[in-house]
Amino acid sequence: MDAEKKMGNEIIKEGDEVLLYLERDKFFIIEVKQNSSFSFHKGKIEHNSIIGKPYGCSVTTNKGYTLKVFRPTLADRILKLKRKTQIMYPKDIGVIILKSGVGNGSRVIEMGCGSGALTIALAHSVAPDGIVYSYDNREEFIELAKKNLEKAKLSKFVVFQKRDVKDGFDVEGVDAVFIDLPEPWEAVPHAARALKNSGIVVSLSPTFNQLERTAIAMEKNGFGFIESFEILMRTILPRENKTRPFERMVSHTGFIIMGRKTVD
Amino acid sequence: MDAEKKMGNEIIKEGDEVLLYLERDKFFIIEVKQNSSFSFHKGKIEHNSIIGKPYGCSVTTNKGYTLKVFRPTLADRILKLKRKTQIMYPKDIGVIILKSGVGNGSRVIEMGCGSGALTIALAHSVAPDGIVYSYDNREEFIELAKKNLEKAKLSKFVVFQKRDVKDGFDVEGVDAVFIDLPEPWEAVPHAARALKNSGIVVSLSPTFNQLERTAIAMEKNGFGFIESFEILMRTILPRENKTRPFERMVSHTGFIIMGRKTVD
Amino acid sequence: MDAEKKMGNEIIKEGDEVLLYLERDKFFIIEVKQNSSFSFHKGKIEHNSIIGKPYGCSVTTNKGYTLKVFRPTLADRILKLKRKTQIMYPKDIGVIILKSGVGNGSRVIEMGCGSGALTIALAHSVAPDGIVYSYDNREEFIELAKKNLEKAKLSKFVVFQKRDVKDGFDVEGVDAVFIDLPEPWEAVPHAARALKNSGIVVSLSPTFNQLERTAIAMEKNGFGFIESFEILMRTILPRENKTRPFERMVSHTGFIIMGRKTVD
Amino acid sequence: MDAEKKMGNEIIKEGDEVLLYLERDKFFIIEVKQNSSFSFHKGKIEHNSIIGKPYGCSVTTNKGYTLKVFRPTLADRILKLKRKTQIMYPKDIGVIILKSGVGNGSRVIEMGCGSGALTIALAHSVAPDGIVYSYDNREEFIELAKKNLEKAKLSKFVVFQKRDVKDGFDVEGVDAVFIDLPEPWEAVPHAARALKNSGIVVSLSPTFNQLERTAIAMEKNGFGFIESFEILMRTILPRENKTRPFERMVSHTGFIIMGRKTVD
Repeated sequence: MDAEKKMGNEIIKEGDEVLLYLERDKFFIIEVKQNSSFSFHKGKIEHNSIIGKPYGCSVTTNKGYTLKVFRPTLADRILKLKRKTQIMYPKDIGVIILKSGVGNGSRVIEMGCGSGALTIALAHSVAPDGIVYSYDNREEFIELAKKNLEKAKLSKFVVFQKRDVKDGFDVEGVDAVFIDLPEPWEAVPHAARALKNSGIVVSLSPTFNQLERTAIAMEKNGFGFIESFEILMRTILPRENKTRPFERMVSHTGFIIMGRKTVD
Repeated sequence: MDAEKKMGNEIIKEGDEVLLYLERDKFFIIEVKQNSSFSFHKGKIEHNSIIGKPYGCSVTTNKGYTLKVFRPTLADRILKLKRKTQIMYPKDIGVIILKSGVGNGSRVIEMGCGSGALTIALAHSVAPDGIVYSYDNREEFIELAKKNLEKAKLSKFVVFQKRDVKDGFDVEGVDAVFIDLPEPWEAVPHAARALKNSGIVVSLSPTFNQLERTAIAMEKNGFGFIESFEILMRTILPRENKTRPFERMVSHTGFIIMGRKTVD
Repeated sequence: MDAEKKMGNEIIKEGDEVLLYLERDKFFIIEVKQNSSFSFHKGKIEHNSIIGKPYGCSVTTNKGYTLKVFRPTLADRILKLKRKTQIMYPKDIGVIILKSGVGNGSRVIEMGCGSGALTIALAHSVAPDGIVYSYDNREEFIELAKKNLEKAKLSKFVVFQKRDVKDGFDVEGVDAVFIDLPEPWEAVPHAARALKNSGIVVSLSPTFNQLERTAIAMEKNGFGFIESFEILMRTILPRENKTRPFERMVSHTGFIIMGRKTVD
Repeated sequence: MDAEKKMGNEIIKEGDEVLLYLERDKFFIIEVKQNSSFSFHKGKIEHNSIIGKPYGCSVTTNKGYTLKVFRPTLADRILKLKRKTQIMYPKDIGVIILKSGVGNGSRVIEMGCGSGALTIALAHSVAPDGIVYSYDNREEFIELAKKNLEKAKLSKFVVFQKRDVKDGFDVEGVDAVFIDLPEPWEAVPHAARALKNSGIVVSLSPTFNQLERTAIAMEKNGFGFIESFEILMRTILPRENKTRPFERMVSHTGFIIMGRKTVD
């Protein structure tokens, strides 16, 4: 028991969120509650049959299908977020976080919280000493993002505020600004004011037209080292003697553009 | 002055590392030293002309070319790492870090430190409360990675050790294991022992054959939720009325495979 | 009327095959028959309402949806082929035909006719003076391919024969050999014998393992200038002020490998 | 000897064009002339050492490097065309030809002949009974394309004419129109007039902005079944037990858009 604890092998308990994995692209995240059950097209599972078991265990539905029970990762949560919008994908968030250099202690702004997908990843990255200022002009999205952050236990690293992009931001000297708006170019001058020197602005948007206008706005507002790219993730199916790429893929989510604040 | 400080606008000083940006794909990271100079094919710059200036400023070479001076990000450092090996790319590291769920407080193992590219990103992510155990069986790579970590000021989050994969690891209950070896399948059983339940193993390797053997090893060693993919980054050139993708790209670095430890 | 004829503007008549186009990825090829009708989820169309109209016209279903009526192209036919197998895609066939240099007068072998997709394109390319020798060891596929070739009015350029790869081919001095078999390497030595000097062998197969074995067989059997690649087709949606790639794509069909016969 | 002839095994003779292959991406096309020699960085080859040999033979340079001697294919010629412009790639030409349905007997227009890359492929496809009308407003390109067509022995299937897009075309009822112009939308109304009903217009251009404007022009000019896409070709290196994609690729040449003429 102590050995298990030393190994970090927690036991699943009431209130935990667990990931139930059936097969490729088929998994669920549920909150475990005594005497509850989870049903899907391959049968039913009693939560009680999971409680007290170790993470990594298996459970079988009443129809005989086996699910593995895992601890949900950040990326799992993002993919399964309760959402009202097109969500950002891990492939994009991963490179955005890495290339923006955000880490423990960073102070960052997010303009357009959406369902909170990027917010979760930012909060996770700036913890424990940084802060995310997250703005949106739609109350219902702030409420949704707040709930999603609470579930991920990352609320305390985020300050949400209802705010229109036209009104700019009320913090300064931030390390990075992340823009997720239909008209991202409108936020660029405000980003320039809020950032510290050499600070990074990042925008993700689906069309070339948005990308082009945002790039022009970055140049006009004194950003340098402007980089623009798209990230593609292609699934491979490795199987003995018949390894091949999967036949379909998400071939477009958005174009990412980044720039760094210069001093005249 | 105080206002500038409040804005986080530091002044470049002796001993700082700065990024000199000329144009797309042409930038340098140098350590600023009084009375030194930096020369490249477009001319020479005196370090003294940078010292005391704010980040985000510009300097001009004696041949009249202008460079922007930025604070190097984590990803910049990784791309410009002093290296003896093929390096991991930000596109791959970003998704690996995000999908493995590594964050503040994580305890992780890296088998095969190479030049320290992934080590830097892992150390940055687990800070301030986590730790990276980094192993390699080649003394010269450990030395190189150590130096690269020092430059990035992330040494205290990494324990390096000369160790052959055959001898396994000497820590247990870790959150994730990252394998960067020519024969990654050899490390898989050791990863299974070192990980806590539901913990994640990740391997990156260039050939399909390595991927296939590693996948088989993961299945044999009780890993579930096995995912395998490749990440492609495509540069876009956004310019007024003539936006288009760039003509060339890095079309292959490696295949990534991840699995999660299950309990029999 | 004469002017129309001069313009090549034929009128749709009984027995013609026409393409009915609703929207992106939603189109049908039907044979027009007096007093028949065509039904789908958006309603019904009387063939009589098409007969006598020009190609390029529109017809409206009884539910009010408009379809455009086009002359089916070769690629349309291939995509809509009656099939029993995974079909070859135009993106792959196009490059295979071009890079193999097949044209009017070419004599070529196809080993594995499948549903006849590649056969149609080959027949079209070698016409009017060339010939396609098409082999398969499964009678039902030969029958299916034959029917598909008849519909495309290209039968006279193809000689079908039931034949197992082990028995080799019974023609010699051909310009190119196309292999579409689960074990393509078995056909490689036979291809070497059937080809004229500098003639081209082409194989398409879905897995890396097949590709690797086929490459090794080509090297062993004296093929040079071996090229191997995959072709990806990505749909773009051009719309005023919001142009972007489509979100999904076929990300894998097969790997193509080509080699040229050398003389020892 | 007769057997060889029956096999189609021609002997290399004075005046033939041959392809000399060194290694991946390193090959040359030369015209064989008695008493001439060919030199490159790996040494020198006497043409006389090739004359009288069979295609598929090998020759060795005075520095000891071996080259294979092949009959150049259409795609080889296109890649090695004497050019003054960015050339069209086989990956694009292949799909364009196949999807446009061009074949023996087709009458087609090409607006913008450039160096003649697409012209060669079109001429090859419409032979022996069709014709390509190829226009350009730059005399020097027409001259270059003419020479390239002569080398490929396809001149008799092409009518070249100096002509500005503003003046439209002087043939009608064609099966397909191919546009390769910096402002492709200007040619779209003329294409609509020249095409027979259900005929196909195709344009290839490098920027999204060109694509978008061309799409709008196609819609305005009554084209239906508009398809737009890009083609990517990724090289794979198949080697025993270490098969992988090649590290670099051409990631952009152009966007292709196609439409079909409708009747009001």
